[in-house]
Amino acid sequence: MERLAARVAEAADLVTVALDELLPRADGPEARLTEAMRYAALGPGKRLRPFFALETGRMFDLDDRPVLRAACALECVHAYSLIHDDLPSMDDDDLRRGRPTVHKAYDEATAVLAGDALQAAAFEILSHPDTYGDGAVRAEMVLKLAQAAGAKGMCGGQMIDLIGVRDDLGAVARMQRMKTGALIACAFELPLVMAHAGEGERHALMAFAQDLGLAYQIVDDLLDVEGEAAEMGKKAGKDAAKGKANYVTLLGAEAARERLALLTEQTKAHLDPFGPRGEILRASVDFVLERRS
Amino acid sequence: MERLAARVAEAADLVTVALDELLPRADGPEARLTEAMRYAALGPGKRLRPFFALETGRMFDLDDRPVLRAACALECVHAYSLIHDDLPSMDDDDLRRGRPTVHKAYDEATAVLAGDALQAAAFEILSHPDTYGDGAVRAEMVLKLAQAAGAKGMCGGQMIDLIGVRDDLGAVARMQRMKTGALIACAFELPLVMAHAGEGERHALMAFAQDLGLAYQIVDDLLDVEGEAAEMGKKAGKDAAKGKANYVTLLGAEAARERLALLTEQTKAHLDPFGPRGEILRASVDFVLERRS
Repeated sequence: MERLAARVAEAADLVTVALDELLPRADGPEARLTEAMRYAALGPGKRLRPFFALETGRMFDLDDRPVLRAACALECVHAYSLIHDDLPSMDDDDLRRGRPTVHKAYDEATAVLAGDALQAAAFEILSHPDTYGDGAVRAEMVLKLAQAAGAKGMCGGQMIDLIGVRDDLGAVARMQRMKTGALIACAFELPLVMAHAGEGERHALMAFAQDLGLAYQIVDDLLDVEGEAAEMGKKAGKDAAKGKANYVTLLGAEAARERLALLTEQTKAHLDPFGPRGEILRASVDFVLERRS
Repeated sequence: MERLAARVAEAADLVTVALDELLPRADGPEARLTEAMRYAALGPGKRLRPFFALETGRMFDLDDRPVLRAACALECVHAYSLIHDDLPSMDDDDLRRGRPTVHKAYDEATAVLAGDALQAAAFEILSHPDTYGDGAVRAEMVLKLAQAAGAKGMCGGQMIDLIGVRDDLGAVARMQRMKTGALIACAFELPLVMAHAGEGERHALMAFAQDLGLAYQIVDDLLDVEGEAAEMGKKAGKDAAKGKANYVTLLGAEAARERLALLTEQTKAHLDPFGPRGEILRASVDFVLERRS
């Protein structure tokens, strides 16, 4: 577990350094915008998607370098989604990881634009020849990321979350698959595209990603009910207060924990076809689900 | 001029039909989002970028089909930028082309998300194999569009516009090049990429696009001062009221009109290398600049 913590921390460092290189400098009359982008994307974060991408790439013997650029693109989309989700018209959060959210640290207009520009930056990084020699591979990665981020992925999931799912576990699961699951799956999918992985391996890893994303959501829902605001760096118990359904409000904490335990084993089992090559990802399941912020 | 009006109208129809096909249907629990995307992207609009893209493609004997898909991507980015620019935290506009803006017709959160999802849709359309056979060409087009849309392009220009340029014609020009010029240039650049055009032709058309964008901005600034709100479908005289500098506040209407006339001739001259092939684009300069909404 300690070795794994070191690997996660190393991936986080690698992607932070790479993002610092790739994001536009905070100069020119538009510096306020690029500063806000950097504030959001380079601030503290677990960088789980980059970690997953790097470990998937290593499992397929890819160089870290191209995978790291894809990981930066993923992180730009993730960072933009957090900026916009935190806006007053959306979840209206003042704090994110213990720091003022972008619209608090800057202003609302800057926050909207910083999110917009980070999304563009993601596609700029991914489509650049430095990411991968074969343009068809770059275009395929752009397609996967755009689909994961768009109306049938992350944005659609956030819309459903805003409308509020109230009393149906299937609807909660669908919302999660779109809102957070699609981008998590993309962290595995982009390296799979670069590795020209076969259908069987793609299928196994996508099933792994989907179950991992769901398990992660249940942990989140448990934290939402049980977590302390200070520990999470954001408000707790929000879903219940808003009358929104999630795994814990629908199943109760006890049953949600049982489901989480089953799902955790099922998630790991998807890695069986990879044998010893899947060791790191298998170990990361417990590590990721035991996170506390 | 009548023949040109018909061509512009034909391009608008083509891109509206294509966008209607390409944008996600308004179904599923996220229908509110896809409805808002369609409201913004399929509503009335001049579709000048699609017209420019199609005519540039025809100048290079490209099929309309791939260019039309690129034109749809451009229009998605344009539509998203209008949704976000209209937000209360940005320009705070209630009307756009005589209709309620998206945050008025829906709500602010839906407007933010519809813009976000339209940006993703642009890259999804552009990177899809149906757009062009060669993946390297698709990736290059994604790169160009992402650069035009991002922090050093459209988003950066909007940031500068929000901060407000107050007393420098160079700064006003830089803002315009970023905020609107970059995406207009992209309408010419994407077909150039598909046509594998040479450096000379690229240069000439980029200079044409840049001057055309600038001329278009001066027309806009003149309309801002002189236009009637009803005629434009939006508020007039906004820049002056906000103490913002533009070509007319800095030069006066008379000198701005003189500069526009010179610039118009200069714009057309960039097409000289194309000879008779440049006829439609040359004629479009006057047509576009004489628009009244």
